[in-house]
Amino acid sequence: MSYETDNIARIQGYVPGEQPSGSGVIKLNTNENPYPASPLVAETLAKIQIEELRRYPSATAREFCHLAAEIHGINPENLVPTNGGDELLRLALTTFVGESDTVAITTPSYSLYPVLANLRGCSLHEVPLQKDLTYPEDLIETLCNLSAKICILVNPHAPTGALLPVSFIDSLARKFKGVLIIDEAYADFVDPDLSYDSIPLIRKHKNLLFLRTLSKGYSLAGLRFGYGIGDHELIAPMLFKTRDSYNTDYVSQKLASAALKSKNYAMTTWEKIRGSRIVLAESLSQLGLKNWPSQSNFILAQIPQEPGAKNVYHKLKADNILVRHFDVESLSDKIRITIGSEGENKQLISSLKKIIAP
Amino acid sequence: MSYETDNIARIQGYVPGEQPSGSGVIKLNTNENPYPASPLVAETLAKIQIEELRRYPSATAREFCHLAAEIHGINPENLVPTNGGDELLRLALTTFVGESDTVAITTPSYSLYPVLANLRGCSLHEVPLQKDLTYPEDLIETLCNLSAKICILVNPHAPTGALLPVSFIDSLARKFKGVLIIDEAYADFVDPDLSYDSIPLIRKHKNLLFLRTLSKGYSLAGLRFGYGIGDHELIAPMLFKTRDSYNTDYVSQKLASAALKSKNYAMTTWEKIRGSRIVLAESLSQLGLKNWPSQSNFILAQIPQEPGAKNVYHKLKADNILVRHFDVESLSDKIRITIGSEGENKQLISSLKKIIAP
Repeated sequence: MSYETDNIARIQGYVPGEQPSGSGVIKLNTNENPYPASPLVAETLAKIQIEELRRYPSATAREFCHLAAEIHGINPENLVPTNGGDELLRLALTTFVGESDTVAITTPSYSLYPVLANLRGCSLHEVPLQKDLTYPEDLIETLCNLSAKICILVNPHAPTGALLPVSFIDSLARKFKGVLIIDEAYADFVDPDLSYDSIPLIRKHKNLLFLRTLSKGYSLAGLRFGYGIGDHELIAPMLFKTRDSYNTDYVSQKLASAALKSKNYAMTTWEKIRGSRIVLAESLSQLGLKNWPSQSNFILAQIPQEPGAKNVYHKLKADNILVRHFDVESLSDKIRITIGSEGENKQLISSLKKIIAP
Repeated sequence: MSYETDNIARIQGYVPGEQPSGSGVIKLNTNENPYPASPLVAETLAKIQIEELRRYPSATAREFCHLAAEIHGINPENLVPTNGGDELLRLALTTFVGESDTVAITTPSYSLYPVLANLRGCSLHEVPLQKDLTYPEDLIETLCNLSAKICILVNPHAPTGALLPVSFIDSLARKFKGVLIIDEAYADFVDPDLSYDSIPLIRKHKNLLFLRTLSKGYSLAGLRFGYGIGDHELIAPMLFKTRDSYNTDYVSQKLASAALKSKNYAMTTWEKIRGSRIVLAESLSQLGLKNWPSQSNFILAQIPQEPGAKNVYHKLKADNILVRHFDVESLSDKIRITIGSEGENKQLISSLKKIIAP
């Protein structure tokens, strides 16, 4: 006999991208930053004494929240620190959605969203993107008509890398009746020439929650540190009620704070990645592979029926290069490639060349 | 307008013990180990390079689970690693309890249990201990008659420090129809002369889940690392469905593994704490303060109406000594004292002496 509740027994869990333990693999499958975190993070790590780990950490990651608030030009009470961005999503569903409510997402997007809705035991409404993976014209109206308690959009979009105009978020937040979550896990890679900053919108909208993470931009996926940004009344119940009492640990708080203090260093890695993004997109086009203009640290590429995307994924893997292939209808003919170091990208292109046009 | 669901809006969050940031405080309020973790943990910490943090950690903390399984004489699939023991409790409620179900606990015990039940939106049934804080004779029958989906007992008990006989757990697990969680956060401090080990019971009972943590015994409260132990079918849904995809981070996995590898070192701290426990209990008795025989790293002491427990708590605090006072009926005349280093315990007793018998 199983002790699981009926809804848990029915569902499947999230399947994360492969994490090979060997070091010989070129890992372009889970959108990690190819460059390590800043020297200040390294120094901070080197200085931590185990004596400091004897005690419980700050329950609310006080120092980190003050630093992050300063960077975003908001107040510390507009922030909730989380054990990776994923925890923020779970907290939001725990806090704002009941079992008889609906969560709205667009499809495809981050494959964790449907899993979390299933775990919460609520309804999920998926609004399909258009065939070319752009948003439908009437997206705002469609989303607003669903009477969903939460809508989650990823921005820049995964897996296309497309950026939502700030005016779109503004307009949707105004019209949508529930909590609008904008998952900005990849926001650090947006071209600074665009002067893009959606965060000030939290002053206008009490229902707007942004997700940020140090996993990608700050090269700290191993650390599990993310945060939510929103109006204080949206943040407070997650911060003081639904969050596990000590959800972020001492080391991660220290290193995350050091990472923010040395943001300028992280920005040099973002610049390199944006440079590589242009080169990689061009190389893919030269190979005849349609790809989507990306404001993120990955590129979605379409693979012709011959040799086929799944096949290419396997052949790259045989060459010790991991990319991501999603076995869902709208993505089955595509692969998502994380932008690696210049050397890694070159090896990918040379391997792809052999596979695509042998 | 609030966006919280009705049940979240209604409830209060968990209030953790005070965590003062200054270093001049003798902190005997949150049951931390007074001695730092082992030299091997320190060495491991010193060797971690930030390059290693660039990637996602092992989703299932593979190395740690193998080590812990060896220590407990079980299989790795009998373990789920968690972000502190608290996460295991939340996962169990998410996985095994629906909103129309009941969670059973005894009162008083760890004050997080009722909060988690409230967050889950299920019913809570509290079975009161007897006036002297021992378990009622008919506890097994009472618990079994509640038709609860989960029962949580803390063993050794918090805040009394009393140990449940293995035969009691065996018998309750056999008769109870739901999942029986035995929270053994403090099990490391049990006198080894008792040869106490309840873990092998998981082979007999498919509904038995043990909680263990590195926060107390291994001096790593700052790290947030705990784990659950149980039959594979009980563990699997938490490991593969309800757990956040990367719930424990790279550094904590590495240090937790090092802590287990040097368990012998941690055991020397447990021995010191048990020695101090005897001395501290004696000193409290000499001050005329009734206290409960403890198999844990804290002692519950009763304070006469004059000067009163709350008052003593405040006066100790004024002396820079933090202990815990719980403002609930059965504990309002008591304080819970974490066993500190010998010097800290002496200062506590000398301060108490001045307050109790000036």
